[in-house]
Amino acid sequence: MNHQQVMTEYLLSFIEGLKQAGVCQAVISPGSRSTPLALLLHREKTVTCHIDVDERSAAFFALGLAKASQTAVVLLCTSGTAAANFYPAICEAYESAVPLIVLTTDRPPELHHVGAAQTMSQNHLYADHVKLSYQMALPENTPNLLRYSYWQAYQLALTAQQLPFGPVHANFPLREPLLPDLALRLSEEQRQTMQTQYIPLPKLVLANQQPIALLPEELKSLLQAKGVIVVGGECTLNQAKALHQLSQHLSWPIIGDPLTQLAATGKDNPLYLKQAEIIFQKVQDLPTPQVVLRFGKLPVTKNVMLYLQSLTQQAIPQILVDETQRWPDPLHICKYLLPWSILDFVQVAKAVRPSSAPVISSALSAWAAFWQKRQQIAQQVVALQLAKQDFDDSIASVALADFIAEDEVLFVANSNAIRLVDRLAPSLQQGFQTFGNRGVNGIDGIISTVAGLASAKRQRVYLLVGDLTLFHDMNGLQMIQKYQLPVTIVLLNNNSGGIFSFLSQRQLSPSDFDPLFATALDISFEKVAQLYQMSYVQPTTKSAFIAALANSRQQSTASLIEVKSTAELPVALWQRVLAAYQQSILEEKEAKHENNYS
Amino acid sequence: MNHQQVMTEYLLSFIEGLKQAGVCQAVISPGSRSTPLALLLHREKTVTCHIDVDERSAAFFALGLAKASQTAVVLLCTSGTAAANFYPAICEAYESAVPLIVLTTDRPPELHHVGAAQTMSQNHLYADHVKLSYQMALPENTPNLLRYSYWQAYQLALTAQQLPFGPVHANFPLREPLLPDLALRLSEEQRQTMQTQYIPLPKLVLANQQPIALLPEELKSLLQAKGVIVVGGECTLNQAKALHQLSQHLSWPIIGDPLTQLAATGKDNPLYLKQAEIIFQKVQDLPTPQVVLRFGKLPVTKNVMLYLQSLTQQAIPQILVDETQRWPDPLHICKYLLPWSILDFVQVAKAVRPSSAPVISSALSAWAAFWQKRQQIAQQVVALQLAKQDFDDSIASVALADFIAEDEVLFVANSNAIRLVDRLAPSLQQGFQTFGNRGVNGIDGIISTVAGLASAKRQRVYLLVGDLTLFHDMNGLQMIQKYQLPVTIVLLNNNSGGIFSFLSQRQLSPSDFDPLFATALDISFEKVAQLYQMSYVQPTTKSAFIAALANSRQQSTASLIEVKSTAELPVALWQRVLAAYQQSILEEKEAKHENNYS
Repeated sequence: MNHQQVMTEYLLSFIEGLKQAGVCQAVISPGSRSTPLALLLHREKTVTCHIDVDERSAAFFALGLAKASQTAVVLLCTSGTAAANFYPAICEAYESAVPLIVLTTDRPPELHHVGAAQTMSQNHLYADHVKLSYQMALPENTPNLLRYSYWQAYQLALTAQQLPFGPVHANFPLREPLLPDLALRLSEEQRQTMQTQYIPLPKLVLANQQPIALLPEELKSLLQAKGVIVVGGECTLNQAKALHQLSQHLSWPIIGDPLTQLAATGKDNPLYLKQAEIIFQKVQDLPTPQVVLRFGKLPVTKNVMLYLQSLTQQAIPQILVDETQRWPDPLHICKYLLPWSILDFVQVAKAVRPSSAPVISSALSAWAAFWQKRQQIAQQVVALQLAKQDFDDSIASVALADFIAEDEVLFVANSNAIRLVDRLAPSLQQGFQTFGNRGVNGIDGIISTVAGLASAKRQRVYLLVGDLTLFHDMNGLQMIQKYQLPVTIVLLNNNSGGIFSFLSQRQLSPSDFDPLFATALDISFEKVAQLYQMSYVQPTTKSAFIAALANSRQQSTASLIEVKSTAELPVALWQRVLAAYQQSILEEKEAKHENNYS
Repeated sequence: MNHQQVMTEYLLSFIEGLKQAGVCQAVISPGSRSTPLALLLHREKTVTCHIDVDERSAAFFALGLAKASQTAVVLLCTSGTAAANFYPAICEAYESAVPLIVLTTDRPPELHHVGAAQTMSQNHLYADHVKLSYQMALPENTPNLLRYSYWQAYQLALTAQQLPFGPVHANFPLREPLLPDLALRLSEEQRQTMQTQYIPLPKLVLANQQPIALLPEELKSLLQAKGVIVVGGECTLNQAKALHQLSQHLSWPIIGDPLTQLAATGKDNPLYLKQAEIIFQKVQDLPTPQVVLRFGKLPVTKNVMLYLQSLTQQAIPQILVDETQRWPDPLHICKYLLPWSILDFVQVAKAVRPSSAPVISSALSAWAAFWQKRQQIAQQVVALQLAKQDFDDSIASVALADFIAEDEVLFVANSNAIRLVDRLAPSLQQGFQTFGNRGVNGIDGIISTVAGLASAKRQRVYLLVGDLTLFHDMNGLQMIQKYQLPVTIVLLNNNSGGIFSFLSQRQLSPSDFDPLFATALDISFEKVAQLYQMSYVQPTTKSAFIAALANSRQQSTASLIEVKSTAELPVALWQRVLAAYQQSILEEKEAKHENNYS
């Protein structure tokens, strides 16, 4: 056998391992050193290949594919800086637990550290940001090395898909000539020798035992006290529905940002504090719970974080449920850590007070009523303030959330976009899924992530995004165009880094603020739309905006809807909302006081 | 003192260390966590700050600035994926020895590994691709910690600028509030306590000794034999001139690609084998030298590499001069390693046979004449074949090299652009500088590198670039527009990855080749030019092309000149050139033979 045949058998064995572990999607950035793997993946019928020449974009595209499918996606590139371009998406995948199998190709050992072209150290290239990193052996085709190659692929794919999911990396040193033998196949015997089956232990304990017996007495009584549920990270729609059921079962208010899917499933739960950021603005005026029940990371809402922090002084116990066991508690205050899935925990917690039990105490029903009322007021205040306002990015964000249908998808970009939806949009009943990149909250790679998501979902994806974020990943638009993906981009264009107008940086003088934080791009997004053959419209009223959304839904391809704004508009609205809410609370208290005396 | 004042003193001390080491340029990507460092750098009068919202682009912009100035440039960003976007340019800087001081800002330790927002491990983020990586202490303002902060900055900057130059990294954990105290200054006393001076030992040895005595006898006699000089990597114009002098002094042919600056300074050296790739195509027909003298990396020309490799079988000694001591020899055949600067070596080598010595041997003059003749033939063949051809990317590349003036700059992108200039352009006399990113030869970040270069040079920079490379870094155009940089982009648009048509991948069937290697972008670069307000023209004749270049030179800002082509055209020309050269060699041999008998 010649070198090409040996290399081909070795790489086919690797691909066999990937297939056996269920891998069926690959994103390839063209290059020379990666040629053998690229061609063999491309020829493999069970693997769908996507091609993206910009590796940064390619990696985020793979992230989007894997986010949608929750199955590991292969990402392949040539040697050198190509591989370094994958890094941002790999960091995001690691922090948000998305399974990626990153394959980099490399010069063989004899060309390292000797000034060979396009050669750099690729061993452990991604430092702490992958779950595993393998330096593969040079291709050989002894039975032992073929099985090794298969085994590494299989193990990488399993690891990527074990909790917490995440990226893994293998670096392949390959010698020239780089063309594989495309006629070669693994023999049936070779393939059978490799077969490995993964058989996890089913949840026997939970099935056979009284689940309630798993909880210590202390926790059981806490679950019957006055509590608050706080949910963060990314949930599925089913998890969100179960959490709403738990909230109603316990008579506890529940808090969670758009990515928890609580908003999309919360219309029928009056205890869902959709407007938590408003309600928790003045922590000192709020009653103290006896327990806090948390799921995953903290939500986007900063005021909720401050509320939880204030509870530490009163030693209120907090329970953290996190199946991934990463224990995401930046406050370091959780007393109980439960490495359970959300659905398992909800099932057990509901059994603590079965539906056959007597009705809840009056203290608990007053507790529930208090929060319900606050949410009502907050929602009314928002609606009223929005109604008084001319069309702008706040109105567009709310209208968009209201427009999306059950079988469609919303992607909220960082950093203002997700906050507008979180703060202002009401609870919805459509039950569509909301996505975001909240692992490390970057403004990079958003367009490519959406492209990958749209490619996997084959449903329309609506992206709510600011101008800096859209600009950062404009190359992602090429993928949307190339693969004719059904994406509607709602661009909130304030020609600046609007988030800083919400932060302390706004105190700075213009000579400091403008160059460092306002960072006006002065770019015509109409021309960007033309460049990538997207339909373009710039509505100036809410009805025109909704018409534009409806129109984009009819099209088979991509649309850009630009909403012109300023960095100041949403800040001013937000301040009016907060003031009006405090005013309403005051009026309500006075009314109650009068009632007491009447 | 409050937290803000403590942090401010700590960071001002760091900036003091940077200044003391000569740092005067910074590239900042806006963000929240980086606010204190960004503001203090922005307020520092001796540091010029450039703002770039896309961190990948920002890092390449800094690379261009540092390439032009050969002085360390600061690169600053916020926490999270922002820092990962710096990675490609850092890898390139490490391999091509460009000094960068990368400052990333981070959450404090208590927010790590607990799911805090926008937080990831940033310690040793850049793995093997920086010379140093510091995890900075939390800000304190004891005299000891202020001096520590100063010291780290000073040391980082020195390390970045010691041979081989390269990137260094410091990661700053910073607590909120993130606004520094802008009224605060270090006291004169504080500043004086910190002052450190770097005093390297001058080259006493070389100055006081007979330099010739430094060489072993064996090397001295080799330098009087028949040799070939091979130069790679990036040289200065002065180094190139010295190398040409050495070539003529020794009567040895000299080889080096455009980045060695040999082409831009080689018009008067008939021994400069500008068309080496043609001359070395058939290695077996060429005479064997007695010695090979190499400087730095191998040049772009692959055939020269194969020639050098063939010499190993005949045990021809090779000498490698590399001041950086990285010993870039992918052939592993150099017998003598000299960690000398080019200028030092040339001075000593010339003294081996002083100009007062008797004239060179007839064997050596025949040796020189042979190579001179080959270069003459190669250059005639290229000129003839180009003259027969309609305007295309090959003609444009040659015309561009001919057009550029002494005080201007050429940047050749990877991968076809540099090869076209290397293979086809003749030697020049204008003496302009040629740049490229040949550390890891990426097609990423080229526009941003050129923007940084143009910003530092304040001279017109002509970029020769393919469509995939231009697309990969389109965001770099925003920097060219924003800072009104004098850049002329000559785009060779074959709507594909044209390099693969030169490689073995071209043997593949279209169903394999087109998706994986041709990768048509189908993008209108005229629209790209409109988007970034560049003048645009698409000449179809050589004279129109030269007129467009002349016109772009008159403008204060940027121009895009698009040359439409196909992937096949330069391949066909190249094959004609190689065939015509072999034909000419044959004819010349026959003529000689006839002469012998006449």
